[in-house]
Amino acid sequence: MRLGIAGLGTVGAGLVRLLEKHRERLQTATGKTLNVTAVSARDRNKDRGIDISAAKWFDDPVALASSDDIDVFVELVGGEDGPAHDAVAAALAAGKHVVTANKALLAKHGVELASIAEDKGVSLAYEAAVAGGIPVIKTLREALAGNEVSRVYGILNGTCNYILTKMQEEGLPFEDVLEEAQDLGYAEADPTFDIGGHDAAHKLSLLTSIAFDTQVAFDQIHLEGIESISPADIEAADELGYRIKLLGVAVRTETGIDQRVHPAMVAKHSAIAEVSGVTNCVAIDGDFVGNLLLVGPGAGAEATASAVMSDIRDVACYGLTGAPFVTPAWSLAPYQRATLGQHTGAYYIRLSVYDRPGAMAAIATRMAEQEVSLESIVQRRPKHQLPGTGVRPELGSPTSVVLITHETTEAAIRAALEAIEKDGKIAHPPQMIRIEQLR
Amino acid sequence: MRLGIAGLGTVGAGLVRLLEKHRERLQTATGKTLNVTAVSARDRNKDRGIDISAAKWFDDPVALASSDDIDVFVELVGGEDGPAHDAVAAALAAGKHVVTANKALLAKHGVELASIAEDKGVSLAYEAAVAGGIPVIKTLREALAGNEVSRVYGILNGTCNYILTKMQEEGLPFEDVLEEAQDLGYAEADPTFDIGGHDAAHKLSLLTSIAFDTQVAFDQIHLEGIESISPADIEAADELGYRIKLLGVAVRTETGIDQRVHPAMVAKHSAIAEVSGVTNCVAIDGDFVGNLLLVGPGAGAEATASAVMSDIRDVACYGLTGAPFVTPAWSLAPYQRATLGQHTGAYYIRLSVYDRPGAMAAIATRMAEQEVSLESIVQRRPKHQLPGTGVRPELGSPTSVVLITHETTEAAIRAALEAIEKDGKIAHPPQMIRIEQLR
Repeated sequence: MRLGIAGLGTVGAGLVRLLEKHRERLQTATGKTLNVTAVSARDRNKDRGIDISAAKWFDDPVALASSDDIDVFVELVGGEDGPAHDAVAAALAAGKHVVTANKALLAKHGVELASIAEDKGVSLAYEAAVAGGIPVIKTLREALAGNEVSRVYGILNGTCNYILTKMQEEGLPFEDVLEEAQDLGYAEADPTFDIGGHDAAHKLSLLTSIAFDTQVAFDQIHLEGIESISPADIEAADELGYRIKLLGVAVRTETGIDQRVHPAMVAKHSAIAEVSGVTNCVAIDGDFVGNLLLVGPGAGAEATASAVMSDIRDVACYGLTGAPFVTPAWSLAPYQRATLGQHTGAYYIRLSVYDRPGAMAAIATRMAEQEVSLESIVQRRPKHQLPGTGVRPELGSPTSVVLITHETTEAAIRAALEAIEKDGKIAHPPQMIRIEQLR
Repeated sequence: MRLGIAGLGTVGAGLVRLLEKHRERLQTATGKTLNVTAVSARDRNKDRGIDISAAKWFDDPVALASSDDIDVFVELVGGEDGPAHDAVAAALAAGKHVVTANKALLAKHGVELASIAEDKGVSLAYEAAVAGGIPVIKTLREALAGNEVSRVYGILNGTCNYILTKMQEEGLPFEDVLEEAQDLGYAEADPTFDIGGHDAAHKLSLLTSIAFDTQVAFDQIHLEGIESISPADIEAADELGYRIKLLGVAVRTETGIDQRVHPAMVAKHSAIAEVSGVTNCVAIDGDFVGNLLLVGPGAGAEATASAVMSDIRDVACYGLTGAPFVTPAWSLAPYQRATLGQHTGAYYIRLSVYDRPGAMAAIATRMAEQEVSLESIVQRRPKHQLPGTGVRPELGSPTSVVLITHETTEAAIRAALEAIEKDGKIAHPPQMIRIEQLR
């Protein structure tokens, strides 16, 4: 089987190394010899530490994609449009199987490209596009074929998880840890794409489509980043038995799919709470399997190459591996977004309350008006004012109040917080973090 | 596609319910209609809450296995020999694909049955045989095709994990928790098969074969159960930052495969440490993917049916899904067991030391003689003798000493402990628990 690889960055070079190192193993597993017969990249002369002298060089990935020299086109160029899109579309149109690691491309053009693949009777495989080395696409498509999925969620961005883990372990503020992460290369110079949740949302949109048989709807995802998380939140969470993680969550509800990326609290004594650093995970709730959790590297040249190889293996063994989103593209349901405010769950609220008589009563009343009942209330002097420090709290200065609600709706919480803000009893806008119930 | 199901216990009935409930979904995923055309079980008249009136009844599963009424034989009879073996062999010989959940059968006859399947060009699939609903066979066979696995390990027995979790959470002794587990149906009346590690060993032997391309060698597994674990061990582990789990571990070493089932300590702050109750998990270290951890239900009618369905899906989609152990049966390497005592790692040792001058010196000397260095030593009065209890420890009475060693070999530890026992400074045989290093 002849492979054409477009894009020889770290993942592309990793894949070439993998194919070389495991040539024999792969031949046993697939019954085929896998040869890289054509490659394309920006710079022909760059030293990548790999031997690609036997492969035909293409300056243009689109030309490579439809070339007669290859059977399978491996797209590792990246980017939601431009050459990646054109090359994948060209390869499919030319009847080549396509393997890609490009989440942005599929989040934007997945259904359109799936249609072409189905028309041409070829595979469009993208295990590496979601959660790196974790075999979540294979698990959803194949292992859970006999399940209706009710929820899929996970830690889908290693940069955010690294930052939150460090904040928790070292008690440092977001900005300091971000800077450290940038120095270490775990965060980009412009980190917005990661910390704002966009990267996680790309991946979530693909999981949603495959889990719920709907069209990919990246632009319908409720998005909150981790910028607002403070050491005070992390400390309060810890005390109340939680960890804060940036989760991507997709849930089937009565009114549609609730798709969201935001910081969330998970029970401290759970496997997902211990997924730390740059590690990713995906959890799936299915009606027969119950709850599965897959934990592993969400990025990295070698782990991603491993996932790309998984797809190449399937194409080598089976040729056509089925419709890219299981359900044929033409019959994927239009995405129906769950009604706003319908999300139900428990909430963490942190308020900076002016320490005056009646402040707590006013807050409690606003919660009661929305029928929000409270599981825990923690009001405590700030550390620098604790007995023994010699500092006496001043009446009227802001003090931190943390509330954990019982299950309620997002609409109720938002209405209560709006009313509390209007009352003028709090010094800063409220912090609100959803608690994600594990099963 | 016509399915013949032998065995209509909880899993068989669960599978029939799954096929009924998800008929449409499965047709979309496989492009085929999946019909149960024949069944076999002990009692034809038992009410199982499922409609099997359209299926032909067979009293004899072997007759069903080779019947012209089916394309795929699903073996849910159980047992390492007898009708399960005969039926699977008959089905393969008759050129039928086989899907089985029978770990005991495969641990004993896996290679022989794989040979028949390969000769006949049919599939022998067994996702449900290892770790219930966790897609570990698919992950090893397919997702990690481009990896050399260096270690596979996990919590493979729900009964043991339930008991250890309860002991840890409630501070209760093994016997009490076992009794409770028996009352709740989480442990058998004769629990030996589970708590002695035999069940975990069956599963491990299959993981080993597929991960390391060797013949299945169930009888070559070093086996220790959880009977010897005391609340004192669990408490000391907690204090030192560990949890105790019954692990099945297979590691590639220079002298061969080190395959073992035994209680082990894992870092408290890790995802695997939070795999609690009857939940199972499998971790895999691969050269490209790095470390994967899959967590999910290890048993149960519905989760197991989900795994059986995964195999049926693959057979429906692809027909032949490749050699059962990836490497053809004839070319699986003979199992080469790692040299005894070569295991390296850190160890937890708990000694009941007579509290006399020189006792600790003697113990430390024996360790030093074997070049075992110590990371931690905790000697402490028993709780009922702590200051304030009014009880004064008696000189010469046994006191508990807990040691954590640095990395050493099992041979060194065993020699040191033997010498310590011979010295007569300890009241009971030493407790030794391996610390499994996560990566």
